[in-house]
Amino acid sequence: MKETLVVIKIGGNIIEDTIALEAILESFASLKGPKILVHGGGKKATELGNKLGISTTMVNGRRVTTSESLELAVMVYAGLVNKNIVAQLQGKGCDALGLSGADANVVLAKKRRVKEINFGYVGDVSKVNSQVISKFLYANFSPVFCALSHDGHGQLLNTNADTIAAEIASSMSEEFEVTLFYCFEKKGVLKNVDDADSVIKNITKESYKELLATNTISEGMLPKIDNCFYALHNQVSKVCIGNLHMIGGKEKLFTTITL
Amino acid sequence: MKETLVVIKIGGNIIEDTIALEAILESFASLKGPKILVHGGGKKATELGNKLGISTTMVNGRRVTTSESLELAVMVYAGLVNKNIVAQLQGKGCDALGLSGADANVVLAKKRRVKEINFGYVGDVSKVNSQVISKFLYANFSPVFCALSHDGHGQLLNTNADTIAAEIASSMSEEFEVTLFYCFEKKGVLKNVDDADSVIKNITKESYKELLATNTISEGMLPKIDNCFYALHNQVSKVCIGNLHMIGGKEKLFTTITL
Repeated sequence: MKETLVVIKIGGNIIEDTIALEAILESFASLKGPKILVHGGGKKATELGNKLGISTTMVNGRRVTTSESLELAVMVYAGLVNKNIVAQLQGKGCDALGLSGADANVVLAKKRRVKEINFGYVGDVSKVNSQVISKFLYANFSPVFCALSHDGHGQLLNTNADTIAAEIASSMSEEFEVTLFYCFEKKGVLKNVDDADSVIKNITKESYKELLATNTISEGMLPKIDNCFYALHNQVSKVCIGNLHMIGGKEKLFTTITL
Repeated sequence: MKETLVVIKIGGNIIEDTIALEAILESFASLKGPKILVHGGGKKATELGNKLGISTTMVNGRRVTTSESLELAVMVYAGLVNKNIVAQLQGKGCDALGLSGADANVVLAKKRRVKEINFGYVGDVSKVNSQVISKFLYANFSPVFCALSHDGHGQLLNTNADTIAAEIASSMSEEFEVTLFYCFEKKGVLKNVDDADSVIKNITKESYKELLATNTISEGMLPKIDNCFYALHNQVSKVCIGNLHMIGGKEKLFTTITL
């Protein structure tokens, strides 16, 4: 039987909230067994950009990563956010090891090709070096990933944190029985955005079609759910969306995604 | 016989100069055997601080690390500089692994006690986890250290890059025969700052006293040379100060420090 592995992705709003972040890192540190944390960047990169006069470039409603906004992402994601999380986890007895995709060549990506839109320095994951990550896990480190990949030729690339989490979870499933948790500030995927308790307990491929047809789910959730199905199609054992309490097992209300 | 290990520290002015940095990373990548890179931050943190209206705080002529300037250091050293160096080394076939002192708990420090001056978030190294660094070296990674330590209780701390290099080299000397290179833009320690070729080939403890008495060496070099003697007193086999060409072994003109 494969050993279990938990991959937890924490969203930007949690990172912004020092109390929520502290609580989730406490829960993460107390988890037994191999575990991986993946984090987004929150609004800090945008805030820093505003202070520096670097605005977010949008083309046809899609965000573009210019060289300036890549620099911001590298400073905030790999620097400020990653190292503070790592230091806090170390303070809680968890032997965290912060990683960008370039470190130990763990996440390789291809710069997205220019079609209608030039997305700039955005990478689509081509390979996760699961063997290297396994080595770190077996040495009792807990890898902490920021949402940066590299092209193997010297260029860092910006990659969506939800996608990185799904790719890592999928890749680790060859060797581990992986559970992927998407943690954010809400209790789960909501039927009614105005009712924080209206959690949809289970979403299947079938029920997802209905939810889409009836416009039940908020638009921002759709890529996340697509990542969940991607992970399930790639041998990840269990995928959930919910808030931090589910990590400690106290809260039973969250959304499970199944095929 | 112990295996050899090279610890190379690159200074801020090299980091500023993309061509010099490229050349030194090329040389570093081509070195055979276990190797460690330590880098400073250059002027990027100061530049970013100026743009953000965060000024350098000085007390009695000494730099103070406020919480704001620590944030800058974490963004620039652990983020921008470290990850770009790691990505470039990966592009040159060197399996680099970027580390702050908090990652894998590699460099522990104590916040400097407030005496006459409160230096703020500055750490004096208390322990280098040489066993963990050895593990990385034996797994064929080349650790790339930025000049940040942590206190083991969740707090990142700013530590001088020359000092981090000397501490790492000293600590690794238990297991390896270590050579420590301080690389900067000059050919070595100069007898006459206006003559780039006036390299002092060897400095011993005896000759250093004379050089100090005659004010021969520029003031900025003194802490670096003190770090060299510290390393030699702590079993580091060889300590040199010079420029990047000496890494490739083409240039024979540099300063060797001996006891």
